[in-house]
Amino acid sequence: MPVDTALTGPDIGRLLVTCPDRPGIVAAVSRFLYDAGANIVESQQYSTNPFDGTFFLLVTYHLAGLARRDSELADEFSDLANSFGMDWKMTRAADRKKVAIFVSKADHALQELLWRHHSGELNCDIQLIISNHPDTAPVAATWDIPFHHIPVTPQTKHEAEARELKLLGHETDLIVLARYMQILSADFLDSFGGPIINIHHGFLPAFVGGNPYGEAAERGVKLVGATAHYVTADLDAGPIIEQDIIRVDHRCSVSDLQRMGKHVERSVLARAVAWHLDDRVIVHKNKTIVFT
Amino acid sequence: MPVDTALTGPDIGRLLVTCPDRPGIVAAVSRFLYDAGANIVESQQYSTNPFDGTFFLLVTYHLAGLARRDSELADEFSDLANSFGMDWKMTRAADRKKVAIFVSKADHALQELLWRHHSGELNCDIQLIISNHPDTAPVAATWDIPFHHIPVTPQTKHEAEARELKLLGHETDLIVLARYMQILSADFLDSFGGPIINIHHGFLPAFVGGNPYGEAAERGVKLVGATAHYVTADLDAGPIIEQDIIRVDHRCSVSDLQRMGKHVERSVLARAVAWHLDDRVIVHKNKTIVFT
Amino acid sequence: MPVDTALTGPDIGRLLVTCPDRPGIVAAVSRFLYDAGANIVESQQYSTNPFDGTFFLLVTYHLAGLARRDSELADEFSDLANSFGMDWKMTRAADRKKVAIFVSKADHALQELLWRHHSGELNCDIQLIISNHPDTAPVAATWDIPFHHIPVTPQTKHEAEARELKLLGHETDLIVLARYMQILSADFLDSFGGPIINIHHGFLPAFVGGNPYGEAAERGVKLVGATAHYVTADLDAGPIIEQDIIRVDHRCSVSDLQRMGKHVERSVLARAVAWHLDDRVIVHKNKTIVFT
Amino acid sequence: MPVDTALTGPDIGRLLVTCPDRPGIVAAVSRFLYDAGANIVESQQYSTNPFDGTFFLLVTYHLAGLARRDSELADEFSDLANSFGMDWKMTRAADRKKVAIFVSKADHALQELLWRHHSGELNCDIQLIISNHPDTAPVAATWDIPFHHIPVTPQTKHEAEARELKLLGHETDLIVLARYMQILSADFLDSFGGPIINIHHGFLPAFVGGNPYGEAAERGVKLVGATAHYVTADLDAGPIIEQDIIRVDHRCSVSDLQRMGKHVERSVLARAVAWHLDDRVIVHKNKTIVFT
Repeated sequence: MPVDTALTGPDIGRLLVTCPDRPGIVAAVSRFLYDAGANIVESQQYSTNPFDGTFFLLVTYHLAGLARRDSELADEFSDLANSFGMDWKMTRAADRKKVAIFVSKADHALQELLWRHHSGELNCDIQLIISNHPDTAPVAATWDIPFHHIPVTPQTKHEAEARELKLLGHETDLIVLARYMQILSADFLDSFGGPIINIHHGFLPAFVGGNPYGEAAERGVKLVGATAHYVTADLDAGPIIEQDIIRVDHRCSVSDLQRMGKHVERSVLARAVAWHLDDRVIVHKNKTIVFT
Repeated sequence: MPVDTALTGPDIGRLLVTCPDRPGIVAAVSRFLYDAGANIVESQQYSTNPFDGTFFLLVTYHLAGLARRDSELADEFSDLANSFGMDWKMTRAADRKKVAIFVSKADHALQELLWRHHSGELNCDIQLIISNHPDTAPVAATWDIPFHHIPVTPQTKHEAEARELKLLGHETDLIVLARYMQILSADFLDSFGGPIINIHHGFLPAFVGGNPYGEAAERGVKLVGATAHYVTADLDAGPIIEQDIIRVDHRCSVSDLQRMGKHVERSVLARAVAWHLDDRVIVHKNKTIVFT
Repeated sequence: MPVDTALTGPDIGRLLVTCPDRPGIVAAVSRFLYDAGANIVESQQYSTNPFDGTFFLLVTYHLAGLARRDSELADEFSDLANSFGMDWKMTRAADRKKVAIFVSKADHALQELLWRHHSGELNCDIQLIISNHPDTAPVAATWDIPFHHIPVTPQTKHEAEARELKLLGHETDLIVLARYMQILSADFLDSFGGPIINIHHGFLPAFVGGNPYGEAAERGVKLVGATAHYVTADLDAGPIIEQDIIRVDHRCSVSDLQRMGKHVERSVLARAVAWHLDDRVIVHKNKTIVFT
Repeated sequence: MPVDTALTGPDIGRLLVTCPDRPGIVAAVSRFLYDAGANIVESQQYSTNPFDGTFFLLVTYHLAGLARRDSELADEFSDLANSFGMDWKMTRAADRKKVAIFVSKADHALQELLWRHHSGELNCDIQLIISNHPDTAPVAATWDIPFHHIPVTPQTKHEAEARELKLLGHETDLIVLARYMQILSADFLDSFGGPIINIHHGFLPAFVGGNPYGEAAERGVKLVGATAHYVTADLDAGPIIEQDIIRVDHRCSVSDLQRMGKHVERSVLARAVAWHLDDRVIVHKNKTIVFT
């Protein structure tokens, strides 16, 4: 599973489709791309049921001069899309998403994202970092990312979220909660409107809530995990993108679990964010289709 | 982690100790064994806290003529044990435990146990197989193990359990529930009195209950697991011995999860049973110390 | 990765294609299947290079009445195939492959194959078992599979292989070497002509040859593995289908490695065989494309 | 396996022992520590053979006022040690080892070490970074570590190594080669004299040499790995400390393997270094005993 493969370049386009399954979808889409002069470089599909289910498709294609033919291509595709009842989008690999990172005190997930971004493994622009604590300001400075310290208390939460939304403006394509220990209000989610990826430090749906390692130690589990998921109004219940675990044993204290768990948290979050940025994730009901 | 290593032979003894931690325990125990002429071949220890916690010790030793010196050794050790407030037991590797296996329709966990037993990886004698269905009778016949079909309905449960207890007699050291889909009553647990190991087809504490794969598919998890644990009156809440997971994805239906999950269930159960049989598991409160 | 998913039934067909990559392949193939009335239920593709590489495609489709339309469909497809320079084959899920298993003394890989076959996880008919030792005859008897004991010595090898070929006849689609400790001669490979899958008890290309666990212990590795590969005249150098490893440590003796390694050997072999039987493996040069 | 657990503090001491196995070693050592007033907080042991093999022991103990009783304790222990023919050392957890890191262009292993050091997971002082390229100077600057750029060519290698040795002085306890792409000369190894840990970007003993990912892609393996080992004069053949792998598939190009492999390289190296720093690794012949 080449979990972080990215196909990039100015002429690389992506088409994502969700529609009722029926015969002829792939024939029609591939014919459309062929007629447009596009060369398919990757194609993945899935159907919940080939006879009356929902069909999902990711096609990555190369089309010379994509930048100027982009909107024309989309216009042309919309007729075909309508005839199949498709939810769809076309994106260009070169249109890097704009990302805001929210973080609290622990820096491990933030460091991992910034290092992978620097290494060319996250195809995005990181606009800014927002934190309710000042601790990670030096990390942001190292990587030259604007840092905003916005403390949050029960009393100031509403005002703090308003400041956050103002900073984000209309540009942000994705918020990543890199161990941000505040719960975003339903109002904030509505106002922002875009996707938000969170890393939960537990193997959901086990250990929902704020103390998963403590509960894991109490229960005596032999594995601890982490879960990257989209944020919904229902805490820790949004669509899961990626999970992983590490083996632990009776010797591990809660602080051991926290320390060891950091490593699985940061890699799980980084993979989920990379897949989202490369348009490899489709949300359907409360689940994800991930075309890795 | 040599998960299934066993030290066997007529002269191999094991000492398991649980006691309040304090200086001098290891010195006293190792001196005792040295004076007795025993050669320590393996020693593992753990303390919840070296200053005021609980100390756990497994010592495996070689002592020529152990069979006839066994009870004398235990008598001598009891004085030392009392002075440290120890819970302890001495066992001989050659005293193979007597095991009863309970199973319902699915044969995968049963087959794995019987094949590993045949291969010399489970140091025990399998006395009998009890099932509430006749399906696995041919499997039992293949391996020459007595098979008892005891149907269970809500009306006959009490009577069925009485028959089961009668079959077990006073000999059985361990019951293994190898996908036995009946809940044993608190009365049964009390009457049997010994350890019972169950394989739960979910990554506890997630997906408690009878339909873990269905719930896992519904939640859209990216890993499914299995959990081997000691049975207590509180369903699916007993001390966990071993867990493991496999990676799944959006394409997996509930029946895919069931089919794929069988492989992790059978290996997790087999490891847990092997460790128990070799006296590598100590239960403390609701957790296990596993000296693998 | 739903490693053992199988789509089965009388109306399920599969098309496997290898050809020079160029635009329009998927459009043409999917149009062909659409026009034939087939419904694509799975499609996976890969290109070594979308511009001048080699293209690989697996399409699984549902076509009502496939059994009687089979050869007609292939005839029609051959024109399209020729125009793209395709190597291709169409198979029906219902045409279960005929498999012969070769084994020596150790029964673990054999037992796993037979149990998974019995459980419906290997879509094939097992014709016969051939062994150079009598040890596994009772296993074969348990599962009602014809067993042939054909001893092999340097002097009798030629004659033994002739007997084996005679037993196989022209029916056998696949030979599985389930820890068969004889090297098949180049003549045998030529005469048989079909695919042969072997399980090597080491992580190839490390530890080629007959004593991988001994060499692994000597080298002090921290992981040991197993490799399922197609057999070629070049020993242990054929295309790799699947590999996996387990963690070991300094405590493991050679016999520990052997015992622990058996479990990874049998699962790796079973996965590789399942994928081959479901036409999920394409060999290209000395590598495999595996559409899991 | 709590892979990175560390027991620290001014009163924590460690005793490492290698000696011929015979009865009474643990009794004598534990009695010695008890008499000295030390409280054992961890003890692990291993014997290649309890009857005529080599015995290895790690004891971690708490002794109030260890700093001032340190050398006295060692003096007292040397009599006991001599009577058993022990190779041994006593260390204090508070005596952090002094580490020099060598690196070339790729920064992933370096970043990981520096971040884990900053996070308190590597119990050492990082003295300096030496590189044959200037690329990682900004990384060193970020973390305030002295950076020395010492180019190496075949002509200047001798002189370059002389400069390196001079920079190291007599203080350095450990050199870590964090993807340093020069081969250190036998002279350098002799002159330095201390332990050197290297990360090899392949699953040794497969893929020895400078192009492991290229060879892995060519061979079509389904897993790629990394190996942390002590450096000896025999290239890539020193004692292995830790290994791990990741799953790859036919889609992975050499550059995919390089990119994906970086993540396993950095975690394998970090674990090996952490264990060495905490005195958990004993080298015996060409293998390691690792008490994790």
